[in-house]
Amino acid sequence: MTREHTFNFSAGPSMLPIEVLQTASAELVNYRDSGMSVMEMSHRSKIFQGIFDETKAKFKAALNVPDTHEILFLQGGASQQFSAVPLNLLGDKDTADYAVTGNFASIAAKEGARYCKVNVAASSAEKNYSYIPRQEELKLNPDAAYFYYCANNTIYGTEWNYVPETGSVPLVCDMSSNILTKPVDVSRYGVIFAGAQKNMAPAGLTVVVVDKALAGKERPYTPLMLSYELEIKKDSMYNTPPCYNIYLLGLVLNWLEEKGGVKAMETIKSAKAALLYDFLDQSSLFIGCAERDSRSDMNVTFRTGSEELDAEFVKGATALGLLNLKGHRVAGGMRASIYNAMPVEGVEKLVAFMKDFEVKHHA
Amino acid sequence: MTREHTFNFSAGPSMLPIEVLQTASAELVNYRDSGMSVMEMSHRSKIFQGIFDETKAKFKAALNVPDTHEILFLQGGASQQFSAVPLNLLGDKDTADYAVTGNFASIAAKEGARYCKVNVAASSAEKNYSYIPRQEELKLNPDAAYFYYCANNTIYGTEWNYVPETGSVPLVCDMSSNILTKPVDVSRYGVIFAGAQKNMAPAGLTVVVVDKALAGKERPYTPLMLSYELEIKKDSMYNTPPCYNIYLLGLVLNWLEEKGGVKAMETIKSAKAALLYDFLDQSSLFIGCAERDSRSDMNVTFRTGSEELDAEFVKGATALGLLNLKGHRVAGGMRASIYNAMPVEGVEKLVAFMKDFEVKHHA
Repeated sequence: MTREHTFNFSAGPSMLPIEVLQTASAELVNYRDSGMSVMEMSHRSKIFQGIFDETKAKFKAALNVPDTHEILFLQGGASQQFSAVPLNLLGDKDTADYAVTGNFASIAAKEGARYCKVNVAASSAEKNYSYIPRQEELKLNPDAAYFYYCANNTIYGTEWNYVPETGSVPLVCDMSSNILTKPVDVSRYGVIFAGAQKNMAPAGLTVVVVDKALAGKERPYTPLMLSYELEIKKDSMYNTPPCYNIYLLGLVLNWLEEKGGVKAMETIKSAKAALLYDFLDQSSLFIGCAERDSRSDMNVTFRTGSEELDAEFVKGATALGLLNLKGHRVAGGMRASIYNAMPVEGVEKLVAFMKDFEVKHHA
Repeated sequence: MTREHTFNFSAGPSMLPIEVLQTASAELVNYRDSGMSVMEMSHRSKIFQGIFDETKAKFKAALNVPDTHEILFLQGGASQQFSAVPLNLLGDKDTADYAVTGNFASIAAKEGARYCKVNVAASSAEKNYSYIPRQEELKLNPDAAYFYYCANNTIYGTEWNYVPETGSVPLVCDMSSNILTKPVDVSRYGVIFAGAQKNMAPAGLTVVVVDKALAGKERPYTPLMLSYELEIKKDSMYNTPPCYNIYLLGLVLNWLEEKGGVKAMETIKSAKAALLYDFLDQSSLFIGCAERDSRSDMNVTFRTGSEELDAEFVKGATALGLLNLKGHRVAGGMRASIYNAMPVEGVEKLVAFMKDFEVKHHA
């Protein structure tokens, strides 16, 4: 298959912009006449420091990160933040609020419970995580060290369409699957973190945006590599960072800027999601899995009601170059992950195939 | 500068084999007609699982890892292992032995001391880390949970030329800068770990080889991402691993295999180091920094005795495409890092330049 005519709907790692891949390929052996690959550069060298600083500045501009917050380029994925968050933020408190709206929020809450008393402020588990609780349903604890939520739930296809109001309790948000897809008021958050592999760069980089005022109260047994205060002080270079991933994030941010930034991304992602949801809403074969007002613009989950038909659909799509549409094993059905790098054309082809498939099977 | 005629003596991240970079560049946009970059593949997909399994099998073969030991592909660098080691291995013991032979061994011992009583079994700090203590100098504690050492000290240019005898106390070794450069009797070790960015792959991947019998006694506050037992159970996929780095390690292992494996590497690295040390031993200008019987075959440290001449040397070398020869700031002088990917030609050119420089300045 050619890369140009393939649309990869994987939930993560996922598509990167083809222009980014082409630039990376062209620069891989010899970066801009330096005589080196970016992979071969000392992280302490002037040339790599330039790449690092430019990438950080572009991220700061893209998400309009205020000076009160530091941007960290770390490792370990969102899963490592599941422990880093309580280890860094609990301080002398012994409880935290968690909204459990999906698989990864649930895992985060379980890891949180290893360090403190977890208050489940809301859960949609009883309806198979098919919705996001409303503000008035949140059972907030004013003594919580923080309020934790996952902005977009990849497996179930739900997304928070509001920012929770939690008073003086700092907000912590896992934005792994929707960061850089719309503007965010970063000043409202204590910590935002995101694994890179959906909207930013290859797996192996975790971006953490942390309110500097919250750093410096780590539990004494916190591994130094998980300390926000240390990484703030060392500008993410306590040790060798994932340099090549940072370089690729820089290329993705260039691409994003050229496309009009997160505001343009918001328009585009809404339009892409609408193509799928509008079709689902009038389909006589396909059923959307998430409740309407909780639908994700990143991961569109749907099914036919028949496991055999679902499998046939995925097989037929694959043959057309529409890849990785099978839903997560715990959710079943189909899932189309349509992050920033998915071209509108890919979604149009998917909807066209869904229409054909429906006609064929509902004649 | 062209990549082909540039020799990068950086201590890490460092050179990768040019053939590996060329293959990576060619495969970057579309991996073997899959219609995807390796960067875009789901880590749970059959195609990526194939890459993962093949890389792991090749590593197992390359280092002859016995079935008693598991190979883990993790994140966070060696620095993360500085906490993972005590958190996983202490169990009900409260002390561990550390040999402090350089900067990173010292940092590891300090992080160890956050979790247990550290017994400094040996230190070469009093002679600016210019030597490796002999077996009979090690002050071993039979109650230690483990004995920790760093096999090669990049900053000072020293390398252990023997494996410490520690009785029933498990050996833990940071092999970041000499793994895959010679055969290792893995069965003698409890844990071997290595950041990838010197001899294996781009920064962002840490290979950990752990005796499975030692896993499962984590301290209760160990972050799950640092648990050997969990990562053994999940075959390094508790969460998304650094997929692209693993792919590149696979390419490096193919290259290593074609070159004759670690036995061939041992011959080649010894010959490359001898070129430099033989010249240093008869030079009237340059002085080797490490004691003779402790010299590293990976990082050759030397100086002229004059900071001005050192700077002139580095500048002249750079102009010839011999890059990154400046020593680490804490050691001064020069450092030539000559890992597996450094061609013999690069070392020959360096020695030729040293000879010219000596003639010019010792006329």
